[in-house]
Amino acid sequence: MTLRTLLVLGDGLPRQLERLSPRVEVVHAGPPGAASLAEELPGADVLLVWDFTSDAVRDAWPAGDAPVPAWVHTASAGVDRLIFPGLVDSPSVLTNARGVFEQPIAEYVAGWVLAMAKDFPGTWRLQQRHDWRHRETMRVAGSRAVVVGSGPIGRACGVTLAALGVGVELVGRTGRDGDPDFGRVHAADALSGLLPGADWVVCAAPLTDSTRGMFDAAAFGRMKSSARFVNVGRGPLVVTADLVEALTAGRIAGAALDVFESEPLAADDPLWDVPGLLVSPHMSADTFGWRDALAEQFLDNFERWSAGRPLLNVVDKRLGYVPVG
Amino acid sequence: MTLRTLLVLGDGLPRQLERLSPRVEVVHAGPPGAASLAEELPGADVLLVWDFTSDAVRDAWPAGDAPVPAWVHTASAGVDRLIFPGLVDSPSVLTNARGVFEQPIAEYVAGWVLAMAKDFPGTWRLQQRHDWRHRETMRVAGSRAVVVGSGPIGRACGVTLAALGVGVELVGRTGRDGDPDFGRVHAADALSGLLPGADWVVCAAPLTDSTRGMFDAAAFGRMKSSARFVNVGRGPLVVTADLVEALTAGRIAGAALDVFESEPLAADDPLWDVPGLLVSPHMSADTFGWRDALAEQFLDNFERWSAGRPLLNVVDKRLGYVPVG
Repeated sequence: MTLRTLLVLGDGLPRQLERLSPRVEVVHAGPPGAASLAEELPGADVLLVWDFTSDAVRDAWPAGDAPVPAWVHTASAGVDRLIFPGLVDSPSVLTNARGVFEQPIAEYVAGWVLAMAKDFPGTWRLQQRHDWRHRETMRVAGSRAVVVGSGPIGRACGVTLAALGVGVELVGRTGRDGDPDFGRVHAADALSGLLPGADWVVCAAPLTDSTRGMFDAAAFGRMKSSARFVNVGRGPLVVTADLVEALTAGRIAGAALDVFESEPLAADDPLWDVPGLLVSPHMSADTFGWRDALAEQFLDNFERWSAGRPLLNVVDKRLGYVPVG
Repeated sequence: MTLRTLLVLGDGLPRQLERLSPRVEVVHAGPPGAASLAEELPGADVLLVWDFTSDAVRDAWPAGDAPVPAWVHTASAGVDRLIFPGLVDSPSVLTNARGVFEQPIAEYVAGWVLAMAKDFPGTWRLQQRHDWRHRETMRVAGSRAVVVGSGPIGRACGVTLAALGVGVELVGRTGRDGDPDFGRVHAADALSGLLPGADWVVCAAPLTDSTRGMFDAAAFGRMKSSARFVNVGRGPLVVTADLVEALTAGRIAGAALDVFESEPLAADDPLWDVPGLLVSPHMSADTFGWRDALAEQFLDNFERWSAGRPLLNVVDKRLGYVPVG
């Protein structure tokens, strides 16, 4: 299969991608310029969505029966910004960056769990005040976590927490037994029954119509007052106002968010100052070299595409993620 | 064996210890009152050092051939304050709290490693300033740690870090092969050769004449400029001025201390403000219920003593710790 055009949305591409230049015409449509994207999309065989933070693709997608790229790849794990009717209903194959982010995110979540268990934020506040104050803190081994999201990121979070001695219950869209790591994976409708037993509730779910707003007042109301909530999925999985209310009223003990309904947070956003809330600027996945890893992953898939072999990480556009196992 | 007197140094004993009252005369010598301790010591069969932070025992220990307690138990892992000539040369059996603190300390160290790798302190400073600033951080899996101390605490630290994918080299007093968890345990004289390869240097050694001041300018000089140092052993294992100099000059990237040459740190101690230094008030081991666990451990050993069975956790007074395996 020969490529006419590789259309790239986004700036700051790693040098590796220059390797493609002799073989295909590379057209850049970033920083987000919906105008040129709209003009170029119908003539492109492949769209590489390097900047996955904008809605430019949705805005520029060809209407009706106009030609569309045969393959769309996004340099992200979440594909929520690409799951719109035009693309879903089109013949475009959609792939994502599954495989790059799992381990870093799992480490970030484990770090947060340990940091909250040991009250590191409190210790650092006390250090700023030169205040030596011994406290007793929580043992992590033997505590219990519910991880929501049975894709690679949720699984990696669960495996890493289990390595620290945490008892992990994994929740996916559908339940299943005989999972090699977790034994049983719970169905989504089991979540409310699991929440009261959790010391840690970790959200690593994809953002879809059925997960949007799943962490709301009712969910926080079922958690223990000592529970902590972590979100490394997408901001709109959480009803932020309900989380703030739960923290402010002491209904749960703490939370850590790496994703938000609107990013970046504005300097005057009240979330920065909510008691017990750790704010992190959507960086849990981004370890040194992550851009190189994303580039290599795209190049590998590009070789498959060029050779007519099946692509890796093909998203089920109806589900909104890459089905696992 | 019948007990005449159980002498207790320290306040705030858990209720479990009241169980002993009908069986022995319990005499309290705390809060640290060296006078009464000196009077009571010669008549006591057992000394329970509940407050292990003072030098009262050393100061009050009977001179010459005066009678001494047959058994001294300290509610701590480190026994450095009890390794003085009078006690070492006496027939007193010394036991410690091995078994209570390993897992909590290992979790604390793992939490610090993850927190420093992910720059949580930087993120929390930025949160205080309402500053959304994405950064790339370090992957922990695949990094390398040198853990100094091959006793239970060092081993637990090593096992927990290894569970996160860290390559761990364990250093003890003497080297040995065929260790079930680490394969090879390195001898102390191998340390300087291992330091240049370490991303993390974890000090969990006992404080003895041969370990005092082992982390000095020469040791910090052999570490990578990206390395971070962690001390959960005892403060005097480190030449604090040398550590401060290494941090200030950027010779190493960071450090986290839970123990200090003098505790508690005074409010005007310059250590509070050293860049890249995390100060924690000697609490890494102290998870909820730790006092109960210490009391139960002493009671178990007390039953052994009363029944004439061998005590657990007998310290080799010449080595300064409980020999392992």
